[in-house]
Amino acid sequence: MSTERFAALWESLSPIGKVGDDGGYIRQSWTDTDLACREWFVEEALDRDLEVEIDRNGNLWAWWGEPEGDRAVVTGSHLDSVPHGGAYDGPLGVVSGLLAVDVLRERGVTPARPLAVVAFTEEEGARFGVPCLGSRLLTGAFDPAKALQLRDREGVRLGEAISRVGLDPERLGPDPERLARIAAFVELHVEQGRALDHIDAPIGVASAIWPHGRYRFDFTGEGNHAGTTRMSDRHDPMLTLAHTVLAAEEAARLHGAHATVGRVDVAPNATNAIAARASAWLDARAADEDTLRRLVEVVHQRAEERALTDGTLVKMTAESSTSEVAFAGEVSRLAALELNAPVLPTGAGHDAGVLAGHVDAAMLFVRNPTGISHAPQESASDADCAMGVEKLADLLARLCQ
Amino acid sequence: MSTERFAALWESLSPIGKVGDDGGYIRQSWTDTDLACREWFVEEALDRDLEVEIDRNGNLWAWWGEPEGDRAVVTGSHLDSVPHGGAYDGPLGVVSGLLAVDVLRERGVTPARPLAVVAFTEEEGARFGVPCLGSRLLTGAFDPAKALQLRDREGVRLGEAISRVGLDPERLGPDPERLARIAAFVELHVEQGRALDHIDAPIGVASAIWPHGRYRFDFTGEGNHAGTTRMSDRHDPMLTLAHTVLAAEEAARLHGAHATVGRVDVAPNATNAIAARASAWLDARAADEDTLRRLVEVVHQRAEERALTDGTLVKMTAESSTSEVAFAGEVSRLAALELNAPVLPTGAGHDAGVLAGHVDAAMLFVRNPTGISHAPQESASDADCAMGVEKLADLLARLCQ
Repeated sequence: MSTERFAALWESLSPIGKVGDDGGYIRQSWTDTDLACREWFVEEALDRDLEVEIDRNGNLWAWWGEPEGDRAVVTGSHLDSVPHGGAYDGPLGVVSGLLAVDVLRERGVTPARPLAVVAFTEEEGARFGVPCLGSRLLTGAFDPAKALQLRDREGVRLGEAISRVGLDPERLGPDPERLARIAAFVELHVEQGRALDHIDAPIGVASAIWPHGRYRFDFTGEGNHAGTTRMSDRHDPMLTLAHTVLAAEEAARLHGAHATVGRVDVAPNATNAIAARASAWLDARAADEDTLRRLVEVVHQRAEERALTDGTLVKMTAESSTSEVAFAGEVSRLAALELNAPVLPTGAGHDAGVLAGHVDAAMLFVRNPTGISHAPQESASDADCAMGVEKLADLLARLCQ
Repeated sequence: MSTERFAALWESLSPIGKVGDDGGYIRQSWTDTDLACREWFVEEALDRDLEVEIDRNGNLWAWWGEPEGDRAVVTGSHLDSVPHGGAYDGPLGVVSGLLAVDVLRERGVTPARPLAVVAFTEEEGARFGVPCLGSRLLTGAFDPAKALQLRDREGVRLGEAISRVGLDPERLGPDPERLARIAAFVELHVEQGRALDHIDAPIGVASAIWPHGRYRFDFTGEGNHAGTTRMSDRHDPMLTLAHTVLAAEEAARLHGAHATVGRVDVAPNATNAIAARASAWLDARAADEDTLRRLVEVVHQRAEERALTDGTLVKMTAESSTSEVAFAGEVSRLAALELNAPVLPTGAGHDAGVLAGHVDAAMLFVRNPTGISHAPQESASDADCAMGVEKLADLLARLCQ
């Protein structure tokens, strides 16, 4: 795979959802932008004589061979982005999957089993709040009745959003027959850190995904006049929020874990009014579940302590939590062995992690020189990406024998 | 003035703009709700045989005596509210002005000068962002060309909003003849704190309005993935923001001042992304300008110090600043003396503060047992309000001699 061929396909997708002037990408599920990405996928698949299907949860599949066949080998990732995200997180795995099909054909490989490229839907959870929603619904890890009631920030329910594009809300849910036909899944992904860059390796193999969770903190105080209310008479939830943000960072450092408050919501959010309510979302991840639990406990406790001082109330709600995923099967072992690539853990959740409980799954990482992810500066060189396609094709060839 | 008579007029205004179920009031200038409030004012004025006029800036005047006469005595306040504000802030001064006219008539007082009740427009700045806009335009403290270009949150320009209700945008601006005919202005207002409650006094007189300002802090960091970015690799502006929020509260307590961050804006504001940018608006007020300046300096300095730790950048912009207003004229002296009422400063801006630079102005406060303002829990008892009307009538009688 030449870097030019990689770049040509890459650039055919690049304009869709680009905000411009370094504003990154906004590709939210089931919006017109997402539909344009999906149309791009369908056209590229049909150009390759792959058979396209959309499953009951809106995930897109492009088949080389019989979709109903057994022991299928699947590769792919997702096309949606976080708001103002980078170009590579998700799309790199889909583009690489399509190009790996080209490479295999050029090498004269005829897969002995069905091979598919998949684009999962709503992987980031950026629109409806639940990450890996497409793969979770497929595997039965998320209740379809609950999913239909999820709302985006404008109040649109997921049920309405998928109806608008012709998907049947009543068919949403687990798809065990489809899952049973898959023998192996490989997700190629841009690295979301600088580990490969530090050891000067273009490609890595995932060992595990850290356990992680999202916790919503609701702080309730008392709205009042910012100019006239004495400091001692206040019940300002913004103070409790600020303390919790700093407590989360300290606790993460002490526990060798990751904790982030990247999203807040304040009401009435007016300059001359003490806030009446404020919410913060804590994203927490650690190498093991005990550490994660202790980390969240510490943050919650420090929020409660500060609330006593501020005269506010705190309510913590776990919005999602995901156990550790170890990529310890045959596909991962093969990947590390055949590709001669370093093995590393990651703090990010992926569809491969959701599928790993059901099929033999592995992940390949492509070096990201900035180490930045979920932001416009996320990057990978065309040469590394082309190398990623070759390595993915090597692995798929082995798996399809 | 019996509490029943106060309550009867009060309750005739109360339903207009009430959101219901403790949601407070939404009375934004030039909306249908505001027009209903203004219609109420006109009807009440005409019922009292007062001559009604609307000035070039949309402020409403109800005259007892000759509007063109000299050395007029004026009382009043405003009818607009902050979003989800309380019932009393503004309307109490207008209702009390109308009832004071009734009391003076019952006492057989015939004013030796013109007496007016005024309702200023857009005092809260809740729709177009500039507080005391009606009085500022009247006094020439705000450029009418700039005012016409102000936009509300839906993008409607002030020029369009006032044209819709029949006001001529070309006539907006200073009204020096009108101002020159006013000798005294008294604004009665619900207290926006609990000072009167603490000393068990129903009515107070304002000594001064604290100097105050609005300062915007823009924190710039580096957006990144919340799950994969090592704590030591982060440049998280949310941490700098949180530290600044807490620093502002501490500095306010140390300086005996008021500091509030009630409004924030975070980008991209996503749960699994470290923020790239965050902004906080600091509302700061103090008894004197030196203290205010030192307070803001301390907060700015602590933000800068923390930014060094976080690897972020801080930019502070003063969005507005208002000097101290001392109510030190004859009217204030008379008020304190004749009403035998305690004298206290306030942190809130008022039309009386704007007028004070041009006419002899004073403010009366009515006890607010909750101390809450700009929120639905704002309150005053009917008995205290009726007492406020009596005291206002006493003062107006003295001024009209």
